[in-house]
Parts: sequence; C-alpha cells; structure tokens
Amino acid sequence: MDVQECRRRFSGARHAYLATAGDDRWPHLVPVVFALRDECVVLVVDNKPKRTAALRRLRNVRENPQIALLVDHYDDDWARLWWVRADARAEIVDGGRQHADGVALLQRKYDQYVVDAPTGPVIRAAVVRWSGWSARPPGD
Amino acid sequence: MDVQECRRRFSGARHAYLATAGDDRWPHLVPVVFALRDECVVLVVDNKPKRTAALRRLRNVRENPQIALLVDHYDDDWARLWWVRADARAEIVDGGRQHADGVALLQRKYDQYVVDAPTGPVIRAAVVRWSGWSARPPGD
Repeated sequence: MDVQECRRRFSGARHAYLATAGDDRWPHLVPVVFALRDECVVLVVDNKPKRTAALRRLRNVRENPQIALLVDHYDDDWARLWWVRADARAEIVDGGRQHADGVALLQRKYDQYVVDAPTGPVIRAAVVRWSGWSARPPGD
Repeated sequence: MDVQECRRRFSGARHAYLATAGDDRWPHLVPVVFALRDECVVLVVDNKPKRTAALRRLRNVRENPQIALLVDHYDDDWARLWWVRADARAEIVDGGRQHADGVALLQRKYDQYVVDAPTGPVIRAAVVRWSGWSARPPGD
C-alpha cells in the first residue's frame, strides 16, 4: 500500500489505537480518537471518566516520544482485512495556541468535542513512517 | 470493570491489537486474531502474505517479552465505548506439542485456520494484569 493510500485510509477512520512505551518497557495500548493534518496526528486527553492510570500514555510519551498509531478494518472474511500504521514522534502540549489549534481540529471531526470541549493535554505526533497492509490490492 | 467481566469481553472478541516493544523502544502495533484459554492468550503468525518487516513482532518479543493486547468496542455514540486490555508476558513456540495445541485452539475459534492451517511460530502470552474501561456500567 503506498503512502498516499495509507494517509487516505488513516485519515478517514473514526478511531485508532495508540501504543506508547516508557522506561518500564511495557507497551501501553488504548483506543483513541484523533485528527490528521498534513503529517501531524492530534489527540487529546478528554473529559471522559478515567482512572488515574489512564494517564500512563502521557508519562510514557514524556519518557519516550516514539509512538505508533494503528487504524484497521476487521472482517470475518479475511480477504477484506487491511490496516495502516503511523510511526510517529509525539510531544505533549498543555496549553497555548497549539493546544487551542489541536482542540479546534478535533472539534471539526467530532461533534462530541464541540458539546464538551476537552481541556486535557493535547498530544501532537509527527508521522515519520507510514506502513500499510491489505489482503487485496486497493480498488480490487 | 472487574476481572471476570474483562475476561468475558476479551474472550468474546473476534480480533485484538498486539503491542510489542523491542530494544529500539519503538512500539509495534498490529491487529491479530487470538484465542484465550485460562489466563493464556494464543496467537500465530499465519500464512497471509506479509512483508518481512511484519515479523518485527517476533523480534520484539524475543528482546522484550512484555506485551499488551487490546479489545475494544467503538461507537460514534461515546456512551457505548468500552475496551479491555491484557498485559502479558509472551513466549515464542516454534514447534512441538505446545505449537500444535495453540494451532488447535485457534482452529476451534476460526474456520479459516481449519481450511489453511497456520505453520508459523505461535505466541503464547500469560496474562499478568487485566484492565478495562466502559463509558457505562456493565448491564446498563
């Protein structure tokens, strides 16, 4: 799958999976909503009820900015499987214009964030590598 | 979400996400099919066309057996979101009775593996911690 097709499929997804790995080397994995602009993926820690441990994603990013984000399509017909992964370098933005820009970008994609604007830290992740796999060629 | 509910939801899922992290500390993330027996998650590298790089999951497990597996339900109604994560210690089984047992377990869940028996390495992962999150209480 070429980079353009990876970007198209990733951008079109409503949610993704975020993997981070801090100093304890235990990978942490959570579903996330996100927006993609150019080669930057934007996430935010929102206001849904979470246990404190859920912030492990932030600690991990501070300890190790290397992250992976995955979008996929599962189907019991395995001829229809595909996935796209973005390996990226992340940074945490706690406030200021970059935070407001990130929230605004997410609000354009998710009405839920318009109703209840997220106030937690934004994660901005610069994609350094796209990978994709499809059981069948694009357009097949 | 209690451990019993985590196990129930995880076990019922048709696919999951696997995060591994090797010496380069770049988390690797792929969708997988799996079976759960007792506190052991079983996966196999199957015969679908894959680039060599896809075997990074095996190299990572050899370098660092700490892995995470995630099952989730996404819905544009965020009141219906939930996920379950299993943190586990993985080992790779290349052959012998444990390999045959793992493949047999997967074949009971996936007809596709009966038609086309996977011959690649089996990953056996002993769950050390269940975590779960649901936007609404179970049964709500």
